[in-house]
Order: sequence, then structure tokens, then C-alpha cells
Amino acid sequence: MKRFMDENFLLTNTTAENLYHNYAKDMPIIDYHCHINPKEIYENKQFKNITEAWLYGDHYKWRAMRAVGIDEKYITGDSNDYDKFMAWAKTVPLSLGNPIYHWNHLELQRYFGIYDVLNEKTAPFIWEKTNSLLSSEGLRVRDIIKKSNVKIICTTDDPTDSLEYHIKLKEDKSFDVNVLPAFRPDKALEINNKGFLQWVKKLEQISQSVIKDYNKFLIALESRINFFNSVGCKVSDHALDYVPYAETSIEEVSLIFSKALNGETISFEEETKYKTYTLRFFAKQYAKLNWVMQLHINAFRNNNKRMFDKMGPDTGFDSINDNNIASPLSKLLDSLEIDNSLPKTILYSLNPKDNYVLATIAGSFQGNGIFGKVQLGAAWWYNDNMYGMLDQMKTLANVGTLSTFIGMLTDSRSFLSYTRHEYFRRILCNMLGEWVENGIVPNDMELIGKMVENISYYNAFNYFEMGLKQI
Amino acid sequence: MKRFMDENFLLTNTTAENLYHNYAKDMPIIDYHCHINPKEIYENKQFKNITEAWLYGDHYKWRAMRAVGIDEKYITGDSNDYDKFMAWAKTVPLSLGNPIYHWNHLELQRYFGIYDVLNEKTAPFIWEKTNSLLSSEGLRVRDIIKKSNVKIICTTDDPTDSLEYHIKLKEDKSFDVNVLPAFRPDKALEINNKGFLQWVKKLEQISQSVIKDYNKFLIALESRINFFNSVGCKVSDHALDYVPYAETSIEEVSLIFSKALNGETISFEEETKYKTYTLRFFAKQYAKLNWVMQLHINAFRNNNKRMFDKMGPDTGFDSINDNNIASPLSKLLDSLEIDNSLPKTILYSLNPKDNYVLATIAGSFQGNGIFGKVQLGAAWWYNDNMYGMLDQMKTLANVGTLSTFIGMLTDSRSFLSYTRHEYFRRILCNMLGEWVENGIVPNDMELIGKMVENISYYNAFNYFEMGLKQI
Amino acid sequence: MKRFMDENFLLTNTTAENLYHNYAKDMPIIDYHCHINPKEIYENKQFKNITEAWLYGDHYKWRAMRAVGIDEKYITGDSNDYDKFMAWAKTVPLSLGNPIYHWNHLELQRYFGIYDVLNEKTAPFIWEKTNSLLSSEGLRVRDIIKKSNVKIICTTDDPTDSLEYHIKLKEDKSFDVNVLPAFRPDKALEINNKGFLQWVKKLEQISQSVIKDYNKFLIALESRINFFNSVGCKVSDHALDYVPYAETSIEEVSLIFSKALNGETISFEEETKYKTYTLRFFAKQYAKLNWVMQLHINAFRNNNKRMFDKMGPDTGFDSINDNNIASPLSKLLDSLEIDNSLPKTILYSLNPKDNYVLATIAGSFQGNGIFGKVQLGAAWWYNDNMYGMLDQMKTLANVGTLSTFIGMLTDSRSFLSYTRHEYFRRILCNMLGEWVENGIVPNDMELIGKMVENISYYNAFNYFEMGLKQI
Repeated sequence: MKRFMDENFLLTNTTAENLYHNYAKDMPIIDYHCHINPKEIYENKQFKNITEAWLYGDHYKWRAMRAVGIDEKYITGDSNDYDKFMAWAKTVPLSLGNPIYHWNHLELQRYFGIYDVLNEKTAPFIWEKTNSLLSSEGLRVRDIIKKSNVKIICTTDDPTDSLEYHIKLKEDKSFDVNVLPAFRPDKALEINNKGFLQWVKKLEQISQSVIKDYNKFLIALESRINFFNSVGCKVSDHALDYVPYAETSIEEVSLIFSKALNGETISFEEETKYKTYTLRFFAKQYAKLNWVMQLHINAFRNNNKRMFDKMGPDTGFDSINDNNIASPLSKLLDSLEIDNSLPKTILYSLNPKDNYVLATIAGSFQGNGIFGKVQLGAAWWYNDNMYGMLDQMKTLANVGTLSTFIGMLTDSRSFLSYTRHEYFRRILCNMLGEWVENGIVPNDMELIGKMVENISYYNAFNYFEMGLKQI
Repeated sequence: MKRFMDENFLLTNTTAENLYHNYAKDMPIIDYHCHINPKEIYENKQFKNITEAWLYGDHYKWRAMRAVGIDEKYITGDSNDYDKFMAWAKTVPLSLGNPIYHWNHLELQRYFGIYDVLNEKTAPFIWEKTNSLLSSEGLRVRDIIKKSNVKIICTTDDPTDSLEYHIKLKEDKSFDVNVLPAFRPDKALEINNKGFLQWVKKLEQISQSVIKDYNKFLIALESRINFFNSVGCKVSDHALDYVPYAETSIEEVSLIFSKALNGETISFEEETKYKTYTLRFFAKQYAKLNWVMQLHINAFRNNNKRMFDKMGPDTGFDSINDNNIASPLSKLLDSLEIDNSLPKTILYSLNPKDNYVLATIAGSFQGNGIFGKVQLGAAWWYNDNMYGMLDQMKTLANVGTLSTFIGMLTDSRSFLSYTRHEYFRRILCNMLGEWVENGIVPNDMELIGKMVENISYYNAFNYFEMGLKQI
Repeated sequence: MKRFMDENFLLTNTTAENLYHNYAKDMPIIDYHCHINPKEIYENKQFKNITEAWLYGDHYKWRAMRAVGIDEKYITGDSNDYDKFMAWAKTVPLSLGNPIYHWNHLELQRYFGIYDVLNEKTAPFIWEKTNSLLSSEGLRVRDIIKKSNVKIICTTDDPTDSLEYHIKLKEDKSFDVNVLPAFRPDKALEINNKGFLQWVKKLEQISQSVIKDYNKFLIALESRINFFNSVGCKVSDHALDYVPYAETSIEEVSLIFSKALNGETISFEEETKYKTYTLRFFAKQYAKLNWVMQLHINAFRNNNKRMFDKMGPDTGFDSINDNNIASPLSKLLDSLEIDNSLPKTILYSLNPKDNYVLATIAGSFQGNGIFGKVQLGAAWWYNDNMYGMLDQMKTLANVGTLSTFIGMLTDSRSFLSYTRHEYFRRILCNMLGEWVENGIVPNDMELIGKMVENISYYNAFNYFEMGLKQI
């Protein structure tokens, strides 16, 4: 019987232990996709207590609490922080089997040195101990990042963002972590969203231009891309709840855009054409600048309007969608490839049924001498669990090339989530260790160990070409 | 080498053995979804032989026999019972790997004390022994139910059913098992079925009303729901081979219904609107009465018209469908949630690709202080096998909350199927045992043992609120 | 720690070892679906070097090389054979986890007696040794086939093929392997392909007829089927990237065909009708002649137009599609079954999400006293890996009847691929061995051993009824 979450957590054989402890563990972290706030890094935020650090913005935890019948008052409501923490402590034992159970305890272990299991009995002690550590000097945001051996962080930023804090961080000689923006122009694509025109106005302001037609719109967007590039951005991100693809022309799309500017209704077909053209425009810019394009597919966001109206997006009311994606996605990439303007691309789907499709589409657009040019992205969101990560890696191994994998990201809103990289690396090492022990792959630690180091760190380092910050 | 199907069948580690034998095994059974005949319970039916008990209505077995080339004569034809049993005995060894192989032997062990493997050689002895036991007094229907430690049974009943035997059973002081109806109004939704008008007539009779329009139709249905409720019904069931969702209005649906009454053709679009509205009507009634709504999705029934014309439905000619369900299902639930009229709901799909989708949609509609309000249903029909059950539980654990799971049901037409609960519990205990042994979850038998008891029994008990029968 | 790919490769328990070495290993091979050239068998081709044997036509390897950034020059370009081999040797260690890694080393072991791992260091030695063996007399094409214990080979042939080499091989008394054609009339169905009219011309020539209407077209096709039958053909094959099904009539389809003959545009709806009718025509012919029909579904071919324009089809730019298939496939088979003209059929999908659907559809069309009449095909193409094969077999076991499975095929363009049968058999034996060791199935070697022999050889032998070649 292995002890619960000890130093060999998730490592079920000695080769796996060797791989993790001697190759994976000390590799730095490149967290190339997350949702943390650069201002909080710049200002080196201090959390007032564990509830703020853990529960203020984490919709994974909120869902778990709702599922066991906790009153919303203790989740996002006006209860006090202690009671919220106690509600969470009551939820944790019931969440056994869910990755948040492991994340929760990994974070207690790594950042607070707490090896107890969290439940209603241990909660008061853990409340005291974590809060005492958070209020001391060693666990401010920058401390957490340094302690986690993070070298590069990519936040997620709207094209209209000033990147004020990225610029300040760049110039800050006291902090040697490369904090870069990622370009996320969803609002430019969502022509049917209520806020579209308002967003175009914001774009006008920040780009100091008058957007009276589609051409001006693209020019403004291009200026923002160039601005992001000047601040060190190397990666973009698109949330494509469905994959748009339709043959169209600049003339047609210009008309659609004008209709939108005039507040006219845009049909689904027009929306698809608009999105296709605009997405291709973005991709070509990325290719020119050697950026990486991320496509996040098949989320079904804001299922629950009653709660959305109360709480807004990203509050735990999203699910997995099941759109068919092979045909539009393949055609979209093909339409770029044929112009020699397909950028390095990472394909993620929230629906694990898509993994085989994505990995084989990726394999049809490799080349140009790039190591792993088109990637099957790491297990995303709901798939970011023991079995989902293993499944993603096995799929990639089976129908693609695991060696080229750029590995893990947190995708998190929390500064305590870097342990997800550890979680991932343990699973990677265990899979490879099992293969070695079973004679499935050679017992060649030079080969396998290097592979582990590459997937943990070097592949991402080489792929994104962001470099380290020198101070 | 473990012995074949011994007392530690499916339990591969000592924690699993402990969990099964000390926590799961003796929990009572709530069989909240099955297809047995309440009349046979009331009359305490005695089977004339094992062929009647096993082969008269079991289309799982019929499919297995057809797949190995057995002549239909020995399956549903006019062969005698002994020859049919021998044909089955010939099929059993060839069915190795299929859950019917295990079910078959579990039933021999638990109800007949037979530990031999069934094949052509052992068949004559097993024929004799099972028939001798079935013709003695200890294996009538009520004996089997009591022997299986079943406390609550929900049958599956048409709204026009008189519930005669449920009422009689309720009043029968000699039998302390709660046998309740479940409300299955598929025929009310299938407006395009040939038998629809005939069914409306039956509804008129039983509800003593004249259904001249949609409003009267709903009133009649409501009266049946209230009647079912008065007999103790707490759960409904819908077979949604596709998930209908379309925006519509009472006026529009009233017109569609009138067209149907007049024998006019109903388009697919009209059907979808009709189904959406009527299903929402049902759901609101369920919510009001605190019933549970079951949705069974993505079956493809009656694939084979040649055989359907000969033998009718439920004869082994159904398969799995692959409709996209995320969008209509999410919208359907949302349309109820926004009115505060979403009942407790269990989502099942016959297609395992839907499990991640269902579990995450369920997670978006939790709340109201209910423990596991919206459930990912137990592995259904074709998925009700070793791997399918494990997959369903892992999916629920990964993206939802396994602790809230209401567990197993037989979905069976046979009185000998209660061992499927044992099969399920062994798989549950083995999964949890492995997690414990591998340090994935704490070695805390109070916590894990309670979880096993809850998933085996208490969660369903609390969820359905049916209570036990007192005599 | 097991040694890498030793004699017990993939066998993790002693029952599995027993099953593989004593039951599976010496079974002959029926390779009922492949893409090798019968001319090369007839002429007993000798490879000039390992690059020709391994790399000239193998798009699996090409994809792997592109994924790690190898220049196309060394893949399909004008580099010399040694440099191409070295590029492959560099790719191999990076392909660890992909089945080509295992295939590569199995082929080195079985055909060349080389037990080294291929990498840049060992490559020069392996280049020398393999080339020396290939240039000696023991490794011509017929030697490889005999060495592999292959008894029957079915190639893949266009209806317009003369079958010259099949006929010659039939008459060749010096070679006792049954080399038969398989009928693959994709070009007859692809009415919207550019080359359609040209193909009809070829059909006119070979059938010595004038195809002025659809009726004449069918007559010409029937004559080709009968010709193939006279050469021993027993199996057909259709690549259905989507499954066509639409109600139609001979009159309607005749008009569509005439439009195509006149060079008019055929809509997607017309194409579907044409394909449905013509496919049903084919199936009825097959049923009459007791042929087996293979349907290969959900490939997405030629994703990458830029490379397709350069290199043509089958060059490594294909992926998995995700069309919904349950409804059209079920209806297609049903439309044949109702006329009593459904042939023995094997259903393959490139998308593993379809396995449950296919296996349950297959189960709805069994019967006529045939052992496993409708089959879930072996894991195909991208699924032909350790996990994919296991998954296919578990699915078949869970929802169908594994015992009836006709087992493996190479689907290969290479003569060195017969080791894929070994790979498959090891995985089969290991799965069954694990079941035995865990008490999941009885420890009855007579039963399980026979099952292994059947799935390895006898089931296919009996299913296809091709017989052995007597000389």
C-alpha cells in the first residue's frame, strides 16, 4: 500500500520514480497559457487568507460545492471567508476522484508544507496555518512564482489591453520571470455578441483610428498585433466554440461587417463567413511574426442563463460541446497551408472524442523543418485529470509523435496552480516508466530521460522562442 | 491465478475485498429502473423452467445466439424449451468477454448454488438442477426479490396503465418490498408514431375525458401524473432517441396537435416543437411533485425492419445512435432552469462518447441545496459491462462528483438480474480499492467505506425519497 | 523489468505467454486486406536495399519524419537512399510510443535477425546488414511471404484491372500461397471525382461494352464482378468517407448518371442518391456470390491540398473524419436485409468513437446461421496500435461476440508488414491471459486456446471460404 500522495505520488514503478525525480522534477516551468492578472504580479499581491487565494475566482471549486448541495451563499455569496472555507472543507472529501482533490492537497503540501488531508476536522488548523503563512513575507505572488521555478508566464489579453503591467514587468529589474501577453481576440470574432460594437469602439480608441469599414478594422487589429509583438507576445489564442469555415471573399465579409456596424442582424451563415475570413487574417499575421496560434474548440459556455444573468461568464456554468469539427478545421488549416501562411498551431478540444481527429489533422500539416509544428494541445479544462492527461498523451503517441509534445500549461486563474505541472509530469513519467518496465520501449535512460526533459520544458522553450528574461 | 468468479471476483486487491465484503455486499437494493411485470410479483409467479426464466424475454441473449449462427427456431421460434436451453448452453462459451457471460454465472451461483461453468457438457445437469429448484417453493418471484435484498422496485409504466397491481401490492401486507410505478409517457411524445391516435383514445378512456385539443390533452396527462403520484410514483422516464429542442409557443404546438388529431402529416420540425413543449410540460409537473426525471438518449431502435415486422420491438434489433446532443440538451435543461422548474434529473446516453458531455451539462445545473441534483446515469444497456461501468464512474469522478452518484439499476426484464447490482458494486469497490492501494486517495475506510455504502444504497434512497414499505 | 521486445513482448503474464507461444504463434496468416502489388509477387521482386523496402511507399513513416522536422528532400525527395535511411534512423527514437516504433523493430528481428535498436548510431551497421540480406536469395518477396506463414493474400483491385498477375499466380505451381483479388469499386461510386468519366471509359474498354446509360453501366460492373469471381475473388471493399443513404429510384439515379455522362454538375443530394443505389446494387451482387463486403468509413483524405497537388493521394496527408454514421449506415444495411440481400459485411471506421455504434449495428444484422455474419472490423489504420487494437477487441467483447472475430489484416503497402499479425496476436493473447489470471474467464486452455486459434486463423478461413491453394 502506497502512502497517500507521498513523494512517489502517481509513480507506480522504480523507472517512473527515477524519471520523475532525476529528470522531470527540477525542470523549470513555462506556463504558456493561463488567466492570471499581470497587475497582481507587478504589485506582488499578498492574499489576505486562503479563501481569497483559493475560492474567490475558482469556478472548478464552485461547481464541486454546488454539486454536493452547498448553498450559493457560501460559494459566491455574502458569507464570510471562514464560513466559505469551511464549506469548501466539507466539499473536499466528497470530491475524491476529481482532480481538484489532488490539486488541493498538492498545493497544501508544496506551498504550505501541510501534509494533512483537508476535511471539516482539519479545516480550522489548516485555516490558521495557511493564513499565517500567507500573511508572512514568503508567499506573495512573486514568491509563489519563484518557488514554483516558473521562467515564463503568458497571460491572456484582449487586443484593446494597454499591456501596462507587462511593460512595467519587462522593465522591472527585480523580477527575472518573463511575463508576456497572449493575444486573445475573441471579441473581434464574435460579431453577433451584444458587446461587439462597444468593443469596436474600444479598439478605435486604443488604436487611435476610425473604424468605418472592415479594411480599417483589420488595420487596427494589425496595429494591435504589432504592439503586442513589441511587448514580447509570441502566442495567440482563440475560443472557437464551433470551428467556422465557409468560402467567402473580402467583398462579402466587408458587407457583413458594415451590416454589423449598422446594427443589422447577422445570420449564422454570415457569421461563419465573417469568422472564417477574420480568423484567416489573424493566422496570416501570426505566421508572419512567427507566433503560435492556439485554437480552443468545443466548449459550450454559459449553459445556465439563470445563473449567467446573476453572475456573468466563467462562474462554473460551462460544459463540453459535441460539434463535428474534422471538416471545417481541416479546411481552415488547408486554406492557410495552401498560401504558405499556416502558423505554428496548437489544437485543443474540450471534447475528448476529438483527440484522435485533432492529432491526425495536426499530422497532415506538419513540416517546414519545424519540430512539431502543429500540436495536439495538452488535456484541457475538464480533461485535465489523471485519466484525461494519460489519454491525450497516449493518443498523441499512437497517431502522432509524443516526443515533439510541448507539454503542460495551467490554464488557471490562480497563482497556486503551478503544481498542475508537477501532476502532469508525474503522469508522463509513470506512463513512460511503465513502458520501460514492460519492455515496450528500451530501458535507455539517456533517451527516455531526455524525452521527459523535453516534454517538461525544452520543447516549449524551443517552440515558442520567447527566451528567458535577463536582469 | 485467481479462481474463476470466486468470492473475490473482480476484486484485485485487499482494500477492494474489504470494501466489497464489509461495506457494499450487504447494502439493500433500490432497483429504480427496470422492466419487470408487477402482476408477476403480485401473483408470485413460479417459472416452469430455466428457459422461461432466462430466455423467454431476454433480447441480450437472443442477440448473442444470433451472432454465433444459432437458428431463430431455437431463439424465439417453436423449438421446445430444452432445445432452446441447449442452444443457449452452446452460445455461452462463445460469449466469453461479454457481460452476459458473467451475469449468467452470477445468477447460477447466487440463485441456484451452481458453481459450474455452463457449456454443452454441463448443460443437462444444470437444466435438471435449476428446474428442480424453480419448481420447489424457494424460488418464486417474491423469493428471488427477497433473497436479493431488494427494498424498492420501480417498474416502467404507460400513463394509461391502471396500476392495478401496484395498488394491490401496496395493500398486500405479506410483502414488504416497495413496488412503485415509474411514469413513461413516450407514447404521448411520439406524435408521428402510427399508434399515436389510438393511444390518445386510451388516454381519453382512462382519464374519462374528451381530448379535443392540446389543452385537454395536457389536462388528461396531468391527471395521470397525479394518479401515478397517488400510487407512490416518484420517477419518470423518457426515451429520447434524439434530444428535441426548438423554440415554440403553446399556440403553435396546439395547431400541431390538432393536425395530428386530424390525421395530417407532421413534419420533423413540427415534431421537434411538439416534443419540446410537451417534454417541458412534463418536466414542470415532475418538478412540482418532486419527482425525478430520467432521460434515455441516443438509442437507435428497431434497426432491422425485416425482423421488426416479424417480432416487434425489444427483440434484439437495436443499436447505439450518434446524434449530437450537447446543444439541444443544454437548451432544454436551461429552458426549465430559467423558470425554476428543472426537476431532479438523470441523464443517460447509450453512446459512451456522450458521457463527458452529459457529466459536464449535469454539472451546470446543480444546486438548490440538493445533493447531486442532476446525475450522470449509470452505464446503460450496451455500456452495462465491466469496462463501460468503470468508464462511466471515472468520467463522473473526473468531471463531476462521484460521491453523489445514485448508483446501479438493472434495467432488466428478468427477475434474476439483481446480481447486476453485485457486479456493479464489485467494480466500484475495485476502482476505489485500487485508488487507495496506489495512494491516489487516503486509506481512510470511514470515508471510502461510507462512500461505497452511499453509492450502493443511501444516495438513491435519499435522492428518490420513496421510503421503505412498512407492513 | 522485462527486456525490450523479447520473446514475451507484450505478454505480461504466464497464461498470455502460453496462449501466444502454444496457440497463436504458429497459426498461418490470412491477410485478407492489403495494398501490395501482385506483379511484385509474381515476379518475386528483390529489393535493392532497406530504403526501397521500408521507405519508398510508406506514408506512415513519412508522416513521422515530417512531424520531427525532417526536410521533404529526405522523405520523398531526391536525396539518395542512404541519406533517406539515416533520416529515418534519426526519426525512429523520436517515434517511441507510436506503433511504427514496434513494427520497425519487429521487422528487424523477424526478417533480418537484428535485435539492436535503430538509431543514428546503429544505423550504418543496420544499413549494411539488411542490405546484405536483401541482396542474398532468402529475402525476395516470395521468401518473405513464405517465411511469414501466409496462406492467403487479398490485394486491392480496381474493377477495370485485368488481374493479369492474379491469373498468372493462380497457375504458378511453384508458389502455394493463394493470392486473390479484392474488388474495390470506389471509382464507380465517386461520380463527382474529376476522373469519373475517364474511368467509365476504362470500364467500357475492359468490359467491351458501350456505356450509354446507367443500366449499361450496371451490366458492365456486373460483368467485372463475375470476372473477379472467376479469378477467385471473395471480398470487396468500399472507402466510404461518409456513409451515403437516401431513398431514391432507378429512374432518378439513371437521370443523375446521365447528367454525369454529359458532364453536368451533380449536387451533393444527387451524389448521395447515386451512391446509395449503386452501393446497394453492389451489395446485392456480393450477396448472390457469397462475397464479403468491407465498408471503410470516416477517413478524411487529402487534407492538405498543397501537398496533394505535389504528391497525389496516399502520401501521408489524411486524417480521421467525424461524420455521424449510425443513421445512414443502419438504414443502408436495413435496406439490404429487408430484401434478403445483405452480404457478409465487415464494418470499419477510422474514428474510434464509432466502434460502439458499429458493433451494435453489426449485432442487429446477424443471422442466417452464419457465424459472425456482420463483423466489427479490426482496428484500422490510425487505430492499429497497442491501445486501439485492445479497445476494438474490448468493445467487440462488451457489446458483441469476440469469439466470432475474424481478426487481423495488414492493410499495408509493404511486404514486411506481416509482423503486424504477430503484434495483434500478442495483444489478443495478453488480454485473454489477463482475464484468465484475474478469474474473469475460466482457466480452460481448451476453450481459450481454441478461441485464440480461431481469431488468429480459422474464423477468417471459414468466413471468407477462399480455401488454400493446392499445387
